[in-house]
Amino acid sequence: MTVETVSLNRSHDGMQGVYRHASRETGTGMTFSVFVPPHQDGAKLPVVWYLSGLTCTHTNVTEKGEFRQACAELGLIFVAPDTSPRGNVPGDPAGLYDFGLGAGFYVDATEQPFARNYRMWSYVTEELPGLIAEHFPADPKRQSILGHSMGGHGALTIALHHPDRYRAASAFSPIVAPSQVPWGIKALSGYLGEARDAWRKHDTVALIEDGARFSDFLVDVGDADQFLSEQLRPELLERACSQAGIPLILRRQPGYDHSYYFVSTFMADHMRWHAARMKA
Amino acid sequence: MTVETVSLNRSHDGMQGVYRHASRETGTGMTFSVFVPPHQDGAKLPVVWYLSGLTCTHTNVTEKGEFRQACAELGLIFVAPDTSPRGNVPGDPAGLYDFGLGAGFYVDATEQPFARNYRMWSYVTEELPGLIAEHFPADPKRQSILGHSMGGHGALTIALHHPDRYRAASAFSPIVAPSQVPWGIKALSGYLGEARDAWRKHDTVALIEDGARFSDFLVDVGDADQFLSEQLRPELLERACSQAGIPLILRRQPGYDHSYYFVSTFMADHMRWHAARMKA
Repeated sequence: MTVETVSLNRSHDGMQGVYRHASRETGTGMTFSVFVPPHQDGAKLPVVWYLSGLTCTHTNVTEKGEFRQACAELGLIFVAPDTSPRGNVPGDPAGLYDFGLGAGFYVDATEQPFARNYRMWSYVTEELPGLIAEHFPADPKRQSILGHSMGGHGALTIALHHPDRYRAASAFSPIVAPSQVPWGIKALSGYLGEARDAWRKHDTVALIEDGARFSDFLVDVGDADQFLSEQLRPELLERACSQAGIPLILRRQPGYDHSYYFVSTFMADHMRWHAARMKA
Repeated sequence: MTVETVSLNRSHDGMQGVYRHASRETGTGMTFSVFVPPHQDGAKLPVVWYLSGLTCTHTNVTEKGEFRQACAELGLIFVAPDTSPRGNVPGDPAGLYDFGLGAGFYVDATEQPFARNYRMWSYVTEELPGLIAEHFPADPKRQSILGHSMGGHGALTIALHHPDRYRAASAFSPIVAPSQVPWGIKALSGYLGEARDAWRKHDTVALIEDGARFSDFLVDVGDADQFLSEQLRPELLERACSQAGIPLILRRQPGYDHSYYFVSTFMADHMRWHAARMKA
């Protein structure tokens, strides 16, 4: 597969790259970023996947995430995909920030006219990992995943589907029960249709209720997050993990909101959590 | 004076604010950002001034500078002003990135039609310090200054004019001899006129040649910086400091370019340099 290098900048002793390729899953051009830490020639490095939230592209975390110093110290590759197909795809409801472009919700759409292009589940779990393994010094046996908001939803649901592939999973401000909150209901009904059974595979709390398991989770939320009580509802994750016996570290960070000022504050913590679970 | 709060976000245990006010110097509305680290009630904290480069506003360093963790640990207030007057000011040559809006060059213009609004020297050295002292827990006796590219020029020239006010000065990729390079010649002739004597007060190398002194400087440049040999010319600063007996740590960082991927890599180093010189 062809990958075009958009930019490449030395940073924190490693290389921050931005890349573009023609995606078979989304049927569009797609852009993503990869930070490769300093490493010995021939080394294969653990890979951290970071999924972004509504309205974001790879650029938000790449510019504001403050992950590079920690990834350089810990020897982690950091991959940041986009959040939806891009370009001229059918069905984008112009003007909405929470559905369509920038809001793929990490599902493979089954509804028309979205089914051909809105395939972010397969893009993030299959197509892009193949590309990363082919073009970067990545060790596919050591992968982990995290995300922010809609991307926290993506990270937790993907981890619960692939507990053997991802050795760690964490989230900032995740949407943990999309079937029960406005953002999620809009997205899941739009992409997957009104039959709610299909939603459960894309709902962290429902997945856990239905028996999916993962080793442990780290979740940070800001207690001044404007979306906390209506869209995020971390107490639902707390209850589900407790009932299922999944160890959860849920930290309510005082005074923090939903922004990258919050995410960047705790990013290095999360990188250490991931690195500790990908050793050896 | 009235200062309007544009945004305020908790980050790295402190508060990142963005503020707007009506500037008497520029005759326009001006926006700036201030990070206040965690501190005890009533404490007065040292202030680091960061001057940005061509095309930038306060947002570039505020989003991409990776200074907050270090400033929180070291107890430093971090102030990032804009780089020119803003809004509908006479004389902006639309389409130029290196003259006019976003390119104030930290001088008080004497040429028309710039003289009324392009007063970034007085704005950064007089008006804004007054505002900061009035509205933030700042200790005016402990200030320091740094900057990037055009802002490195600003920081070094301001430090050389006020060696008793600023206790530390450093720069990323500074324009050290604007009288001798294209960016500087365009700006200084445009704002100050063709009489080159007036330029020497706004040229780091010329100031040192003319007898200005400062305790010591820290300067980082990337050896892959596309502007290094034509616009920055750090060897001229090296020679001037050497002849004047000013201690200079000039680090040519291998593989680094002119971007914030470079600046953010060494930002914490600079914060430690500043903090060490503002103790007590």
